[in-house]
Amino acid sequence: MRGEKMDKSTLYFILAESALEPIPTEFKNHPKLQRYAKKQKKSPESIIFDKSIHSFLINDPKGYEKRGRPDLVHISLLSILGTPLCKTGRLKLFVHTANDLIIQIDPNVRLPRNYTRFVGLMSQLFETGQVPPKGSSLLSIREMTLKELIEEIKPKYTILFSETGKEIELMKFMSRAVEYNPLAIIVGGFPHGKFSKETYQCANEIVAISDTTLDAHIVVSRVIYAYEIAMKTK
Amino acid sequence: MRGEKMDKSTLYFILAESALEPIPTEFKNHPKLQRYAKKQKKSPESIIFDKSIHSFLINDPKGYEKRGRPDLVHISLLSILGTPLCKTGRLKLFVHTANDLIIQIDPNVRLPRNYTRFVGLMSQLFETGQVPPKGSSLLSIREMTLKELIEEIKPKYTILFSETGKEIELMKFMSRAVEYNPLAIIVGGFPHGKFSKETYQCANEIVAISDTTLDAHIVVSRVIYAYEIAMKTK
Repeated sequence: MRGEKMDKSTLYFILAESALEPIPTEFKNHPKLQRYAKKQKKSPESIIFDKSIHSFLINDPKGYEKRGRPDLVHISLLSILGTPLCKTGRLKLFVHTANDLIIQIDPNVRLPRNYTRFVGLMSQLFETGQVPPKGSSLLSIREMTLKELIEEIKPKYTILFSETGKEIELMKFMSRAVEYNPLAIIVGGFPHGKFSKETYQCANEIVAISDTTLDAHIVVSRVIYAYEIAMKTK
Repeated sequence: MRGEKMDKSTLYFILAESALEPIPTEFKNHPKLQRYAKKQKKSPESIIFDKSIHSFLINDPKGYEKRGRPDLVHISLLSILGTPLCKTGRLKLFVHTANDLIIQIDPNVRLPRNYTRFVGLMSQLFETGQVPPKGSSLLSIREMTLKELIEEIKPKYTILFSETGKEIELMKFMSRAVEYNPLAIIVGGFPHGKFSKETYQCANEIVAISDTTLDAHIVVSRVIYAYEIAMKTK
């Protein structure tokens, strides 16, 4: 019985406002970018924006605090995809980007562990819209807001994990949250700062798992583990 | 009282037989490596071995299954250093390498999130023996076996997490394990295969947290989280 129950449950997991995008359009004609792209033998459009590499483009960091961190998205995705929950097909994974794109990731994808290869794959995804380019996709990309995604997947309950939320004891909280099926969980895919008003409005509840700031990959690891435990004892 | 108890406890966390090393000596004079190093403007000795990049050196993969995966060590370290336990100074972190070196990592180090920068830092560490090169170190390296490290830190109990161990329910197991102080935990810092006989002999108990193979970063995340919970309810 317990097994049956578990099979019917799906956890929707969304990394929201993620710092994953090609080089922003405002830099497209920047002479430094043109030189960089030439050296890399790439078109400027196909380069994934990484602030630790492309800091030379940014004169004023204002407005870029939450952007250009594909490394953070990478480690968060590996922390999700490696869990038993994901490996057994009971998690559906979406990356919402700061530019309102939704990347759907097949839980069976073998995402490159190597960062350079991951960035190469993301570059291919932004160019072609899906990977592999033909047939059923492992990664696909659509123009869509987070609100539209939530309206499409229709979760019974949506929980946003944010340091601005009410502090909870995660294991206890999750043991109640799993009563909602399907449940959607949103974690920020960016380094610092608050979510946008639109993101907060997508959630039924906003909670924090710690009184200090934690990296996204730490939050996702703990949330999924707590969910697995809650499902086992449901 | 509870607070006092917690302050006195330290968790020793060891990534064992880790796949982190400079290019193996057998490749040092390989013409392909010489050309690669020249192109990278580096000496062959200062290049960190990464199988996903340096596969051109390996004719026979036998003997290299557990080596050349600094990406795996990187994500595991980020999964340890980001935890509240580590941030509050209650964890001491060591990386034991396949070549019997011990890297001690200050829990307050801000390890680069960017993989290329992490590899650059490791290269500097292997060249200079400590980072920063002068003064008190954030990262330091010594020639030492895992057995010698265990003899030095003298834990009351040492637990090795291995898929070959007895399967346990982690939360329950950890609630008992925290009675030992100090406790040492060993997780493999390599992708596949078994630990060496010497590593198994360092442990008082060998356990598995899943009936399937899990990535090292998933294991370390769960083990530390379970340890934190067990300490709170101790």
